[in-house]
Order: sequence, then structure tokens, then C-alpha cells
Amino acid sequence: MASPHLVFDEWEDEYAERNEHLRRSAVRDLFAAVSRPNVIGLSGGSPDISSLPLDQVADCAKNVVDEFGLKALQYGSSEGRPEMRRVVADMLAEDGIDVDIDQIIITNGSQQALDFMGRVFIDPGDTIIVEGPSYLGALQAFSAYMPDVRVVPMDDDGMRTDKLEELLEELGPGGAKFIYTIPNFQNPAGVTMTLERRKRLLELAHEYQITVIEDDPYGKLRFEGEHVPPLKSMDPNVIYLGTTSKIFAPGLRLAWCVAPKPIIEKINLSEQGAGLCVSAFTQCLCEQYFTKTDWKGTLKKSQAIYRSRRDALIGALEEYFPEEATWTHPEGGLFVWVTLPPYFDTMQMMSAALERGVAYVPGSNCYPDGQGKSSMRLAFSYEPEENLREGVRRLADTINDRLELYRAFMKAGALPKAAGTAEASDPEGN
Amino acid sequence: MASPHLVFDEWEDEYAERNEHLRRSAVRDLFAAVSRPNVIGLSGGSPDISSLPLDQVADCAKNVVDEFGLKALQYGSSEGRPEMRRVVADMLAEDGIDVDIDQIIITNGSQQALDFMGRVFIDPGDTIIVEGPSYLGALQAFSAYMPDVRVVPMDDDGMRTDKLEELLEELGPGGAKFIYTIPNFQNPAGVTMTLERRKRLLELAHEYQITVIEDDPYGKLRFEGEHVPPLKSMDPNVIYLGTTSKIFAPGLRLAWCVAPKPIIEKINLSEQGAGLCVSAFTQCLCEQYFTKTDWKGTLKKSQAIYRSRRDALIGALEEYFPEEATWTHPEGGLFVWVTLPPYFDTMQMMSAALERGVAYVPGSNCYPDGQGKSSMRLAFSYEPEENLREGVRRLADTINDRLELYRAFMKAGALPKAAGTAEASDPEGN
Repeated sequence: MASPHLVFDEWEDEYAERNEHLRRSAVRDLFAAVSRPNVIGLSGGSPDISSLPLDQVADCAKNVVDEFGLKALQYGSSEGRPEMRRVVADMLAEDGIDVDIDQIIITNGSQQALDFMGRVFIDPGDTIIVEGPSYLGALQAFSAYMPDVRVVPMDDDGMRTDKLEELLEELGPGGAKFIYTIPNFQNPAGVTMTLERRKRLLELAHEYQITVIEDDPYGKLRFEGEHVPPLKSMDPNVIYLGTTSKIFAPGLRLAWCVAPKPIIEKINLSEQGAGLCVSAFTQCLCEQYFTKTDWKGTLKKSQAIYRSRRDALIGALEEYFPEEATWTHPEGGLFVWVTLPPYFDTMQMMSAALERGVAYVPGSNCYPDGQGKSSMRLAFSYEPEENLREGVRRLADTINDRLELYRAFMKAGALPKAAGTAEASDPEGN
Repeated sequence: MASPHLVFDEWEDEYAERNEHLRRSAVRDLFAAVSRPNVIGLSGGSPDISSLPLDQVADCAKNVVDEFGLKALQYGSSEGRPEMRRVVADMLAEDGIDVDIDQIIITNGSQQALDFMGRVFIDPGDTIIVEGPSYLGALQAFSAYMPDVRVVPMDDDGMRTDKLEELLEELGPGGAKFIYTIPNFQNPAGVTMTLERRKRLLELAHEYQITVIEDDPYGKLRFEGEHVPPLKSMDPNVIYLGTTSKIFAPGLRLAWCVAPKPIIEKINLSEQGAGLCVSAFTQCLCEQYFTKTDWKGTLKKSQAIYRSRRDALIGALEEYFPEEATWTHPEGGLFVWVTLPPYFDTMQMMSAALERGVAYVPGSNCYPDGQGKSSMRLAFSYEPEENLREGVRRLADTINDRLELYRAFMKAGALPKAAGTAEASDPEGN
């Protein structure tokens, strides 16, 4: 945007209209900032993979070539290797999702699955429904297909199904192409949808004939509380997305989409046009990892790390953040959602925070419509505990600086205008 | 299409319009047929990777984890690893293409790059220009964006630039979004564009302000004749696509797109929405392979294999095929394009051929508009020489069976109607 040079783009008139609707990932842009020395990254959602048994992964990698030979290096089918889909089916069965492997398609990361959702369902102007806030990568993927995105607010129990019902009533039966939800340890809100809400969501979806897309990258990252059954286990028509990114390694780009057969066939057609097939090599590698290593033991170590880090982050928030701030209390996953008083604009505050050496995701990036301006997403997944504490301290300093100014304004009776409709963006609902 | 069961798709009304335009890959569908025992596959374009030094590849794979550790397993940047882009830049320099690494983006196979071309440039109804015949995967990728595809015929010297000029004159300046060409050992025609034609193509593209996309997966598979400089080496505005699929391993899904910086930025935005990033692991593996093994020595072995196989295929065509058939004489790549008399329909002939135990790609799959019905693509890349000969023999039997029937018809003065406008689809132009 604010480029230091005037760059002339001679192709400017050549680009398709959808490019104007593409959202740029704030997280991605922040990666550049975070790679500056001494900046603590509370922004990116990279999982901690330090628990991975590297020697075993190296053996798996070597085995792939030794055992599978040329098969691991040749083209494969667009739906993915049957062996990999079997690994996925077995994993899903543990969560009460019983599917044949022909209802599973392997994708190049969940991001590609999200793109396929847009590709298969969205005509320009079609209405889709997301939680507010929602995963910015999903908003980005869908935006290429130019939908009208409607937002349903959340609270500590997940998507507010009463508000969903109001919206569905307004839109009428079949009035939206799909409802996109992340029921477990939502990105960015960190909250989990209760069983009651899940059931109500499915009832409403059925009543209004709307497809439900359940994105579940974090489901196996619960470190506290009770497991809640996935939507897919209660309704076979739900489209379910899973990934190896948070339970093995995001660098492999291996994920899956589970859906009724007719939808799988449509996705398969998209896959043929958009990527042909997913790397046979990385599929073989994942098959090895999930059948020949103690991946659940490794995952337990990760969960323990995330738990300590969440405690460190929340402890620091309690210690350093002003009483005006509120935040969520995730029982798993990677993120905490913090909401400041409505006169804060976390996007504007970014440069001051970066100068103090801390990065986060401004809340407005997690909404399609300008909400969330006084909120921010903090990731506790990647930085060690001492950095989380120090990062929160720096962030608190940045906030308190401004707060003093605001308080002086308020004292003088000149309260700054609210930065956005922050109330609706408070997933705590308080 | 002709499903034995009536499958009710309750989502039928939910799909976006683009799904109706998606082309199903005949090659993919044939994979299923070919996996039947005793069917010789002259259909699929899988490269021969038997020359790969598997022990060294296994070491490379292990090294990736040992040397790069968690970096190979974590998220990476959407443009790709600088080290991988450096490997690509060095490879391009050998072909006279001098680019900085910021003009290179790594993609999940060339198929993803083709999808990005459609995504970045094509609004529904926009005109694009392709060679006739053209790569069916490209036609498939572009079709998702609902363009109006115009076809320029080819002959032994590649795209007929005189016909291109006529078309551009009809369309007027800026009348098409891009010209898509595979100048080297074209898929499916097997012909190579002459230097003179390349220069003329660039002149015309400049005159009519049309972007040129040069897809070059086979450029390094020349086994005969003289190297012709790539379009990109003569015009920095050309968009150039390359891949590891034919020079290392298609199972890794690692390719690249080289373009002027503003276009790379648009593609990068698409990448963020459609896949986030390409596997860091497979990038590291390719870096290892292209810097630490004698990949050019391995490639020479592959070239020698392809040369013998082309000779075997063409020798068999000369021996077994009827005099009415013509075919191209590729100096590299994987494919020969065969054209039968115009009253043949190679799509209709498929089941008879499969019954005799041989598969090919019907020519109409390589056109967007129903041309090519009497042609077929034969791949000499994958099957050993004796299978190529036997496959051609079986195919000749299938053809001769029909030919006898046709000759009887002709004798009786009842020549069957032409199967299509086969003349225009004959890349030999004779």
C-alpha cells in the first residue's frame, strides 16, 4: 500500500476482477517484521514442533525412498493414496467419524481445501456465513470467489446460534451456500463450541438447508477439559477438514477433506485442474510417521508445552494488562483473543508495538467487514514461556502508553470515538 | 457420465457455475483403465524415473531432516525458499534467462501455476489463446475461470504465427488476456517452435499487447537436434513456467513460475489464499538433489531412454500403422501426435482399443472446441520398448479393423461422415 517507490504496473488493466477482492494475509506480512531481531512473535500461528523425534522423522524420510521407491516419486491419483486415506479414516474413527476412504480426499494443506470450498460452492455474490471473528486464511481463500460474507458473533460457548437463527431467518431457506465454523479452539478466538450449540447449529443447518463446513485443525490439541464430539460425527452431510499441520509438521502441506461422495467428486475435479495430485512423497512420509512412530506420545508432549505456554501468556495478561482488557481462556489450540476498550485501534497500534519489539494479529484482519478493530489475536504456540511473558509486557507498555493518553482525554471530557463496533467482536460476550 | 447406478446428488443446485465448465481429465480417467492388467499405457504422460539414483535420493531425504531439521517441517514463505529459488535461477541462467530470485515463485506443481494464471488473469468470458492441440491440464485449469478459448493451429514448426496474426487482427489490440504456448516438444503435438516463429510470436504479442505464457516442462528433455532459446530469454515480459517433474520427480509437486515483479506479487496473493506455501520439505529435498547429485548425468540417461523409446514407437508406427495415418517426429519430450483419416473418431474407438489392451489420449481432449477427433496422443515416455511396439501393434489392429469397414463403405460409395474438422488439428500440416 504505502510503498516508498512509485511502482508502475503495466499489467494493471489485465488482472481479473477477483484480484481486487483478494485479502492480503496480515500474518504473512508480519512474518517479515518478525524476522527482525528482537521482535517477539505473538502473531503467527506456527505450531511448536520441537517435540518431533527428528531422528525418527529422518528414518521415515529415508524409508519412504527405500520402501516405496519410485512410487513415492511418481505422479499419483488426485484423491490421494489409499494408504494415506486409510490412516486418516482410522484417525477419524477415534473421534466417532465413520467414513469410507472414498469420502476422503487428500489436499495440499487445509488452505487448498478451503480454496476448493470456495471453488466448488461460491458464485460471485453468493452468501456465506462465518463466525466473527474467523480464520483469516479462510476469509482470504473465500474472497477470491467474491462471496457476500455474513458474520455470526461468538461468545465463550462458540458461535451464537441464536444470532445464527436470526440471520438464517433473514436469508430464508437455501439463502446461504455454507456455514463455515471452527468448533474447537477457534482461530482466532480460542473458544470451543459447546455440545448444545453444535446440536443447535446442525438443526438450523438442516432446517434452512445450508451446508456446514467444519474446519478442525486444532481438535487434537486439547490440553484441558472434555472432548466435544465433532459436528461430522453427528451429521454425515457435514464437510470436515483436517490436517497434519498441527499434529505432525506444517511444512509437509498435507491435509484432508471429508465429505459426501458427490461433493468429493466435485472437489476431485477441482484438484485435477488446480494441482493434479498431492505429493506422493509427503503422503508416504506421513503414512510412515502415523503408523511407525509414537505420534500420540509426541502429541502429548506438544499438548503439555502448549498448556504451559497458555498459562504463561494468560498469567502475563493478568499481571501486565490493564483492567479494561478482556480475553478468552482456551482449553486447547494455539490462540488467545484479547479485546481492548472500543476506542483502541489495534491496527494503528501495530507500528508502536513493533517498535517495542512485539507482533500480534490485529483483530480487524479476522473479520470481513471492519469489525474487531479493538481486538487482537495472540498466539501462545510458538514462543517459549519467557518470551511470551516479555512479549505481553511490551504489549502492555504499548497499550498503557495510549491508555494514559485516553484517560487524560476522558478526564477532559473528550473521549475518543470508538475505533469500531468492538462489542460485537468480543467473543467473551461481556 | 454413463454411471451404472442412478446417484442422487442432493447438492446439485448448490455448486458454483464454474463447476459446469470444469473439464475432466481423460488422462486421469484412463489411469483407472490402465491399471487393469495387460493394458499398455500409451496414454499417461508419466516420465520415466527409473534412472534416478534411489540410494542418493534416500540420502537426500534423510539429509533434509538431519541438516535442515525443524525448518524443513515448519511453514515457509509463500514465494518459496530463497535457496530453492536460487537453484531455479541458476538453472534458468543456463538457458539464457537472467532473473533475480524475486521474479521467481515456487508452486505446487506446474498445474498450480496454470491455475494461478487463470486466477490472476481470467474474468468469465475473457479471451485467451492456446495452441491447437494444447495441454489438456492447462485447458482444464483455465476452464475453471470460464474463458473464451481461441485456438491457433500448429504445424511441424510449432504455432502457426500467420494464423495467430489473423486471430489477433480479428480480436484487436488487448483483445486477449494471454497466449499460452508450450514451445518445446509440445504436449500433445510433440513439435518444437522454430526460432523464427518464436521471434514472430513475440513481435505479435508486443504489437497487440498480449501477455505470453511459456510453459516449458520438457525443455531439458531434448535428445536430438539443436537447442532453441526460450521466449523468456528474448523478452523479459514473458511469463515462464518450469518444473522438477520431468527432470527429477513428479511425485514431489515442485515447480516454478518466473514473471515480472508486479505479476509475481499477484500470484503470491493467490498462493496465500490457495495454499499458503509449498512444502518446505520437498523444497529442501530438491535443493539437495540439484546441488549434491549428478542430476545432469541422470538426466542424460533419461534422455537416452526417451530417444530409444521414441525410435521404438515411431518404428512401430511405420511398421504397423496404415498409410493413411500421419504422425509427428519429436526431438525430445514424451509425446507423438498421430492423425488418422478424418472419418475416424478416436474417442469412440477407445473402448475397442482398451479391449485389445492399449490406452491412448483421444485428440479431442486436447482441444477446447471439439477439434482433434481423428487424432490421438501417444506417450513414449513410460512403457519399455517392447510394450511400445506391442501397444502400437494392438492399436494398429484396432484401426485396421475399422479401416477395412470404412474401405468397404467407400467402395460401396458410402463414405462415412468426417468425425471432425480433422484437417485443422493435424500439427504436421499435411
